[in-house]
Amino acid sequence: MSRPGRVLVAGAGLIGTSVALALRAKGADVWLSDVDEATAKLAADLGAGVVVPDLRDAKGIADVAVLAVPPAVVGETLGHAQECAVAEWYTDVASVKVLPVAQARQRGCDLETYVPSHPLAGRERHGPAAAQADLFLGRTWALCPLPETSADAVAAVTSLAVGCGAVPVTTDPETHDRWVALVSHAPHLVAVAMAARLAPSSVPADALGLAGQGLRDVTRIAAGDTGLWAQILTANAGPVAEVVAAVAEDLAAAARELARESGDADVISLLDRGQAGVARIPGKHGGQPRNFRLVQVVIADRPGELARLFNAAGAAGVNIEDIRLEHSPGLPVGVAELSIRPDQAGALLDAMEAGGWPVRR
Amino acid sequence: MSRPGRVLVAGAGLIGTSVALALRAKGADVWLSDVDEATAKLAADLGAGVVVPDLRDAKGIADVAVLAVPPAVVGETLGHAQECAVAEWYTDVASVKVLPVAQARQRGCDLETYVPSHPLAGRERHGPAAAQADLFLGRTWALCPLPETSADAVAAVTSLAVGCGAVPVTTDPETHDRWVALVSHAPHLVAVAMAARLAPSSVPADALGLAGQGLRDVTRIAAGDTGLWAQILTANAGPVAEVVAAVAEDLAAAARELARESGDADVISLLDRGQAGVARIPGKHGGQPRNFRLVQVVIADRPGELARLFNAAGAAGVNIEDIRLEHSPGLPVGVAELSIRPDQAGALLDAMEAGGWPVRR
Repeated sequence: MSRPGRVLVAGAGLIGTSVALALRAKGADVWLSDVDEATAKLAADLGAGVVVPDLRDAKGIADVAVLAVPPAVVGETLGHAQECAVAEWYTDVASVKVLPVAQARQRGCDLETYVPSHPLAGRERHGPAAAQADLFLGRTWALCPLPETSADAVAAVTSLAVGCGAVPVTTDPETHDRWVALVSHAPHLVAVAMAARLAPSSVPADALGLAGQGLRDVTRIAAGDTGLWAQILTANAGPVAEVVAAVAEDLAAAARELARESGDADVISLLDRGQAGVARIPGKHGGQPRNFRLVQVVIADRPGELARLFNAAGAAGVNIEDIRLEHSPGLPVGVAELSIRPDQAGALLDAMEAGGWPVRR
Repeated sequence: MSRPGRVLVAGAGLIGTSVALALRAKGADVWLSDVDEATAKLAADLGAGVVVPDLRDAKGIADVAVLAVPPAVVGETLGHAQECAVAEWYTDVASVKVLPVAQARQRGCDLETYVPSHPLAGRERHGPAAAQADLFLGRTWALCPLPETSADAVAAVTSLAVGCGAVPVTTDPETHDRWVALVSHAPHLVAVAMAARLAPSSVPADALGLAGQGLRDVTRIAAGDTGLWAQILTANAGPVAEVVAAVAEDLAAAARELARESGDADVISLLDRGQAGVARIPGKHGGQPRNFRLVQVVIADRPGELARLFNAAGAAGVNIEDIRLEHSPGLPVGVAELSIRPDQAGALLDAMEAGGWPVRR
């Protein structure tokens, strides 16, 4: 928001809670609701806002209501929220737009106050615990106003997107769905199809032990929620099918050429086109890489060792910004990678040395 | 090495220099050679060892010679090194194994002293300046001894891999190449085929503006060197073709189902298989995925908070197997996700409750 406002977030999952955290950081009043009370409670514990147990008791509570629910229930949730008159304006954040809009029309929702939208941000993890106040920082937020949508509604939702640190882009629901088929939904299926090759029990664990960062990156998003993705893909079936069929055709042609061992013209052409394609993806706009110093500590893999390490860091006044544990199975030690502010590195290294940990300066 | 030995590294690129640095750190005597003298000299300046200008003057200089050269020249380099009798035992580190072995056989190399191998480690950068002594720490190092290879040679190269901090895994060249087709070469082509969809000028830049981290990760490796990858893929054509054809078939089936809008059974099955597949990829250091219970704790983001948490866990006899911190920058709290053995969950939750942390059971 250009100035702090009052926002209701219906659906306290990854996206909803991240919106709530981002707006809370700007000083907005945020209310939270979720069909699962424990989820809303966890989001509230994280500082995302105050739980509203029942929308029927929330009349006029917000300027904007953000419906952060799965695509299939956007229409229903919008209808209910509007019946309860919880807000002046409404938006949803579903990753398809044609379907929710059709549902909203069919239900006779008030389209004047409704701006279908979609922040292009996410993580392969879900739930409020994965939420991040900076999830939308520099990311595109697609707004798909309808012919009926009022200019005031568009202004309010634009302001909300900007308040989350995002960059608003206006398009229409059909164009939106065709574009996200290409840059989000088809890539998801492609990652899934590669990851599916690793599943059969005929693939020994030893083979997977050879996996490097490339495989991890290509398949990372395949870990996403199966039910949600089935919904997304079927809701955007036509555009997704077109892209995926073309990818399948290119791969089949490359496989045939390799199998025939008949030269590599097709493979080289595909490699060249792939390289040209990836070069067109713009950089992560405005994403602020946090500049932390990484300190590696070899630790014994037994109760109390991490506590001893964190005690030493805490006593030295050093805040651990992030930690990652690396284990070598069967070995009695692991490596803790601590991320700290660069100006605290000296203090941490001193504390580690005093505590008997091997230090590499 | 179990005890410091004498090693010749032929080829002072990223992998060769990293091997040299790792073994130097263990007190080994390391000699370096490279077809490009300046490269060898840079590695030496980095502390990786002493340059040997000409292998013909290096008879008996090493216990083990590590041939860190491109796949296509392994056979030739092995032949030359054996003619010069520079070492007692030999290994190479190329990322395909059937081709170098065939070349070595064809050249009549001494296979009794040769252990084909492949450390599963790398970086996006190359050359000696990118080398790291800890590049192999906890990484898998595949050993592919031949029927002719002596037990002493295997012991010597195993010891070298362990000396670099790697975890040796023994297989044969054919199995190795089939495995890397699955976990490295096919994923590369899949990333390329997805990226190729973004290349046509019919794809507007606005559409690519909607790209998120998912697309970036899926397509990242497609930026790799086209010529090098064409070589790798054709050197491992059969196994790669098999995996890629199967991926193409799954994608084509999903596309057909989506285009027909005839339910989503195939798509859901593929999503499930993909999720199962990605879950099988072990952690960074090749560990077996272990079945841990995840406990989420909301913690204040200040020095000492994690120490307090770990103290409570340690006092309760609970070993934290893994930890992941989720932060929202600018917010005073984060979430610590603790992985623990399921039978310790009760004890941890009790300890957390006693310590005043909000507990969700």
